[in-house]
Amino acid sequence: MNLNEILEWRYATKKMSGKAVPQEKVDYILEAARLAPSSSGLQPYRIIVVTDPEIKEKIKPIAWDQSQITDASHVLVFAAWDNYTEEKIKAVFEKTLTARGLPLDRMDAYRERLWGMYSQLTEERHNHHAAKQAYIAFGLAIAAAAEQKVDATPMEGFDPNALDEILGLREMGLKSALVLPLGYRDEDNDWLAGLEKYRTPEEEFIINK
Amino acid sequence: MNLNEILEWRYATKKMSGKAVPQEKVDYILEAARLAPSSSGLQPYRIIVVTDPEIKEKIKPIAWDQSQITDASHVLVFAAWDNYTEEKIKAVFEKTLTARGLPLDRMDAYRERLWGMYSQLTEERHNHHAAKQAYIAFGLAIAAAAEQKVDATPMEGFDPNALDEILGLREMGLKSALVLPLGYRDEDNDWLAGLEKYRTPEEEFIINK
Repeated sequence: MNLNEILEWRYATKKMSGKAVPQEKVDYILEAARLAPSSSGLQPYRIIVVTDPEIKEKIKPIAWDQSQITDASHVLVFAAWDNYTEEKIKAVFEKTLTARGLPLDRMDAYRERLWGMYSQLTEERHNHHAAKQAYIAFGLAIAAAAEQKVDATPMEGFDPNALDEILGLREMGLKSALVLPLGYRDEDNDWLAGLEKYRTPEEEFIINK
Repeated sequence: MNLNEILEWRYATKKMSGKAVPQEKVDYILEAARLAPSSSGLQPYRIIVVTDPEIKEKIKPIAWDQSQITDASHVLVFAAWDNYTEEKIKAVFEKTLTARGLPLDRMDAYRERLWGMYSQLTEERHNHHAAKQAYIAFGLAIAAAAEQKVDATPMEGFDPNALDEILGLREMGLKSALVLPLGYRDEDNDWLAGLEKYRTPEEEFIINK
C-alpha cells in the first residue's frame, strides 16, 4: 500500500480490543516519530510510552474516560519542551555538528539569530512552537502505525496539567501535548468503524495561485 | 520502501534544481495532506499552491531570500483558520453527517461541548490550535513527497503577515503557518545533501513508563 492508501485505511479508532501490539511494531512507530523533521532540527519534544496498567488507569479519568487508554497496549504521550533556552539549543546544535564531523562553531551565526528570535517570545509561545513540532511527529507516527496495520486514536481530549502530574513531566521540563493509544480496532463494537471517512472536498481545501 | 526508509531518504533540501514536479505527483502530495487527521475532523486549514513565478518572486524576499521559493515548481502554503466560530464548526459537522447519511443533530451534544471549550479561548489560541492541526498535514505531505522521490523544504522562516498580504489570506479568514516548496535537489550545490542526518538518540527521545 502507498501512503495515501494507508491514510484511507486508518481512522480514529473508538473501541480497541485489548490485543497487544508487538514491541517491534511499537519500535517502528516510535522510529518514524524520531525521524520526523522539526524546526532547526531541535526536536523539542519527547515521547513517553506508557504500558504500566496502573498508570493507564490513572490517565483514563483525566482523558474523558476514553476506553482506548486502557484497551491500548501502549499509550504514547507526546510532550513538548516547556520553553527554549540558549543552553538547550546549543546542546542540540553541538550534538548535530559532532555527528556530522563539523567544527562546533560552524552554526554560531544561525544559532544566534535563532535565539535572537526565540528570546523575544514568552514561554507560552515557546511551548506552542515546540508542541507544533510534536504534531509533525505525531502525524508520522499515526501513518507508521497504519502502515503496520496497527490502530491508533489521535487524542487532544485530556487534562494536560493532570497528565503532566501523573507522569512527572514538569520536572523533566516537558508539557503533554498529545496522546496516541496504540492497539487494534474492535470493529463490532466501534460505532465509527463502519462510517465513511469525510474530508473537506479538494476544490475547497486547495487554493491555486 | 517503507515509511521509515522514506523518512531516512528525505532531508530539508537547501538547493533545488528548478526541474518541475509533475502535476500528478503534486496532486498525490496534496491528497496526503487532505487525508490527514485533525481535531474533531475540522481540518481548520487550507493549502495554497503557488506556481505563478511573479508571486514566488514576491514571496522570496519575505522568506529570508531562500532560493527554494523560486527554484521549486510548486510552493505549498499551509494556512490555518484565524479563529473558530460556532458557525464554522457547525458547517463541518453538517457536511460530515450528510456524507455519512446520519441525522444532522446526531453530534449536537459533542459539538456544544466542543464550542463550550473553544468559546473560552482567545482568537490567538484558536489560531495556534488550528495551526497545530496543519502541522500534522504538513508532516504527511513531506512523507508523501519523499515517497514520490520529490524533494521538499519544511519552512517556518518567513514573515507570516507579509505572506498573508501577498496571498490575500486574511480576507479568506486564514493565516499562513508553514511553507513547503516542492522540487528536486541540486545535489552538487546543496551543502546539506551530503551531511549525515542527526536525530536525538532513542534512549533520550523515548521515556518508558
